[in-house]
Amino acid sequence: MANPTRMAREVAEQPAAIARTLEALLPLRAEVTALARGRRRLLLVARGSSDNAAIYARYLAEVHAGMAGALAAPSVATLYDAQLDLSDTVTVAVSQSGSTAEIVETLEWAKASGAATVAVTNIADSPLALIADVALVTQAGPELAVPATKTYTTQVAALAVAVDALASTPGTLDAEFATVAAEAERMLEPGDALDAMVELLANTDEVLASGRGLAFGTTLEVALKLEETCLRPVRGLSYADLKHGPIAIVDQHLVTLLVAGPSGPTLPGLVDLAATARTAGSPVLGVGGDAGFRSACDLAVPGPALSELLAPLALVIPAQLLVERLARRLGLDPDAPRGLKKVTQTD
Amino acid sequence: MANPTRMAREVAEQPAAIARTLEALLPLRAEVTALARGRRRLLLVARGSSDNAAIYARYLAEVHAGMAGALAAPSVATLYDAQLDLSDTVTVAVSQSGSTAEIVETLEWAKASGAATVAVTNIADSPLALIADVALVTQAGPELAVPATKTYTTQVAALAVAVDALASTPGTLDAEFATVAAEAERMLEPGDALDAMVELLANTDEVLASGRGLAFGTTLEVALKLEETCLRPVRGLSYADLKHGPIAIVDQHLVTLLVAGPSGPTLPGLVDLAATARTAGSPVLGVGGDAGFRSACDLAVPGPALSELLAPLALVIPAQLLVERLARRLGLDPDAPRGLKKVTQTD
Repeated sequence: MANPTRMAREVAEQPAAIARTLEALLPLRAEVTALARGRRRLLLVARGSSDNAAIYARYLAEVHAGMAGALAAPSVATLYDAQLDLSDTVTVAVSQSGSTAEIVETLEWAKASGAATVAVTNIADSPLALIADVALVTQAGPELAVPATKTYTTQVAALAVAVDALASTPGTLDAEFATVAAEAERMLEPGDALDAMVELLANTDEVLASGRGLAFGTTLEVALKLEETCLRPVRGLSYADLKHGPIAIVDQHLVTLLVAGPSGPTLPGLVDLAATARTAGSPVLGVGGDAGFRSACDLAVPGPALSELLAPLALVIPAQLLVERLARRLGLDPDAPRGLKKVTQTD
Repeated sequence: MANPTRMAREVAEQPAAIARTLEALLPLRAEVTALARGRRRLLLVARGSSDNAAIYARYLAEVHAGMAGALAAPSVATLYDAQLDLSDTVTVAVSQSGSTAEIVETLEWAKASGAATVAVTNIADSPLALIADVALVTQAGPELAVPATKTYTTQVAALAVAVDALASTPGTLDAEFATVAAEAERMLEPGDALDAMVELLANTDEVLASGRGLAFGTTLEVALKLEETCLRPVRGLSYADLKHGPIAIVDQHLVTLLVAGPSGPTLPGLVDLAATARTAGSPVLGVGGDAGFRSACDLAVPGPALSELLAPLALVIPAQLLVERLARRLGLDPDAPRGLKKVTQTD
């Protein structure tokens, strides 16, 4: 491309942005560990893409750190002003801008309710960073395209650091953290299957994205990006929620997009789901997984060679490339989707 | 109708089913209060329609009982076997059949992790009821249509009782509990606007449902029922999540369905959302709300005359009637939607 879009440039900046972020934040891990001492709960506060990063953090907290997690319902704080005792809780608020009023207010509420507070934001002097006990500032640099890409993956990296700080023995993932940027770099060359996936999606009216467990947040992020950038109706559903109803609408008119980590206990179910969807006539696209998963799909691109725990730091990248190319294929501007602003204000 | 569908009959049985359920379960509230003594957290375990009931319970727990709540990620238990300390937690598992393996296994895991356990199920001798410390058995009677209607509203009623048991002063809602069955009865005559809504939905390809706060679980339940029964792609999104991206796809090709409680701090935002969606060309349908909310919609039906806290026990009923009529209007069988079984087994 003579003139790559801003989104394409920012997607390509991710390996360096992730490397800078891990370098900046791993030394702050001990501060989070100290802040969390004696606290038993993780409460995550986020919206939009940041919420998808937070969903990963919740699974990681429970699976890796042995700490129960939850996603806050911000209206409980901002509209209902509920009186909760959060003295046993570490609250982590995630916002690219650090200035979304709803997120800032919810973190203030958590602090007033007794929680220890951490901010994950890309803006060092943002209100969110200023009110938190510890600010984990991602090193994405300015992001100009409306769809969050490098701010999302650096949030995921920051959350992996924050959650590792909550484990009984922080640091067990450090050797793997050191390989993430190189794996992210490798994701920038996804191979020919990606263009075939773009072509197939360009000719469909509806997409259903599914995944489970540690890769579920990535699944929801892929669904959100496809929908907001390409203006395609896309649902993101967990494997189990899909089987509890919406599986009824899977047929040849709908493309099924499955997102999977490289290994782990959720993978066999996703291979089965690929077969079920194909039997129902739906074309099945895959991102990540292992070789068996990819051969169960009609078209698939591999994910990073990282463990299931850290794969979400780079697994979204092939899907970001897919979204950027699909938007252009559809004659849309990936940098400025209709109807969206960079910073969303909700009350 | 000469031969009403099973679904229509079961929708009509709800006032009596809710009355029986409240009569049976309010006397058990003290057992839940005793079980929860000294515990600070509510963890809800559910899938599908039961999960929508659980989402209501989470908001009610935080807003009414002042206890922080969370929805379990069952794969953390069943697939990852995470090691969590739940000795500070009351876990409430919700399953119509009480025999979905994933839900039963997750409650067993919670118990082994130190949680006090409550089952909300329609089957008294189900595995879920048998393993729980306290079983709250809903009195819906046998439900034969595949779409959950009376088992859903009686779950919501049971959860309202369970959450009230967690409040510092249980019993403050009792006068209102006594009026719920009559309000549910009133919802069975929704007025002419409902048929106009059916006609409009019969001619659309896509629906987006939105709501917030205490009525958000109802919103998701309406979306799920519409999708699984009428095979229409329907997303259910919170007001705030909608503004964070998917608002881009709201246009004249999509019907917006808003679900609201009768009052409360979320209502002004939903009135604004109705105006925004109409400006974008989307027909806006409303269920519930106040007179101002309904006049902001193109077509609307009122909800029950209950407080925002208890409205979800009956607010879904007009939407159930809508779904049943729409399915018939589309030539579908509301009793047996394509691709679904009554009891879903997920692993």
